[in-house]
Amino acid sequence: MDPGLSRCGYGAVRSVQGSLQPVAYGHLSTPTDLPVGERLAILWDDLQQLVQDLRPDVMVVERVLFQVNARTAMAVGQASGIALTIAARAGCPVVQYSPNEVKLAVTGYGSASKQQVQDMVRVLLALPEAPRPADRADALALAVCHLSGAGLRASIGAKA
Amino acid sequence: MDPGLSRCGYGAVRSVQGSLQPVAYGHLSTPTDLPVGERLAILWDDLQQLVQDLRPDVMVVERVLFQVNARTAMAVGQASGIALTIAARAGCPVVQYSPNEVKLAVTGYGSASKQQVQDMVRVLLALPEAPRPADRADALALAVCHLSGAGLRASIGAKA
Repeated sequence: MDPGLSRCGYGAVRSVQGSLQPVAYGHLSTPTDLPVGERLAILWDDLQQLVQDLRPDVMVVERVLFQVNARTAMAVGQASGIALTIAARAGCPVVQYSPNEVKLAVTGYGSASKQQVQDMVRVLLALPEAPRPADRADALALAVCHLSGAGLRASIGAKA
Repeated sequence: MDPGLSRCGYGAVRSVQGSLQPVAYGHLSTPTDLPVGERLAILWDDLQQLVQDLRPDVMVVERVLFQVNARTAMAVGQASGIALTIAARAGCPVVQYSPNEVKLAVTGYGSASKQQVQDMVRVLLALPEAPRPADRADALALAVCHLSGAGLRASIGAKA
């Protein structure tokens, strides 16, 4: 999950004998003209449905950092709270990674560009093109980050 | 609601013919040794029960500001997301005020001290003593802020 209130990116990845397969990816959005509570309630319903449909073994959620402006940070914090609550209620363990941890795991270095992360996600998941918009790719990158570990990082290094 | 993950203060106030009556106040807390998702899920259950019990006409939630450290702000944002979502799902309108708006409404000036706000809450609600800890008084102050409006602010000025 790449949490957000206007757009909440999700990406589900399955690891089969060390090979990563994309299961589903997309984003949930809420109308910007509704009060924030109603938007969160819509996100709650949509996300709960998604978790019911996908039944993930683990939910990987981006650890929110407060470098952005306070208004965005607030909405992201609220959306991440919804995601963490739904996961816990579904008995689904949650893991959180910072954007730099994701970059490091996916590309091999923590200061990679967004474009490099997206290209790597495309290669690792054998997608015909990088998912657009970026929050879908970011969500898939979180899943890849969690499933990769050091072993996969090494194999990325070997490929590169 | 004074949202928080470790302690979430609540205060319910009824206005009867211009007189403010405290209905209930306290706080919900979650164990600090659990993962954040499980803590949010506990807060969700407790807060939903509270809303079912009290059936508020309106939920007043403190508007979170990001002056505090990022770790606290994150938890407060997540807890406020839970509160706003539960209110919306219960069909309960939400109003948000900043701490300064509350101070202005309750004491007549926006730079009042926490102690002054607590004293004023005690006087307005005819409580024998100011509620402790402070997050309970802060939650009651939010309710008073919403119910007061300009008319009550004038009467506070007349009393002071």
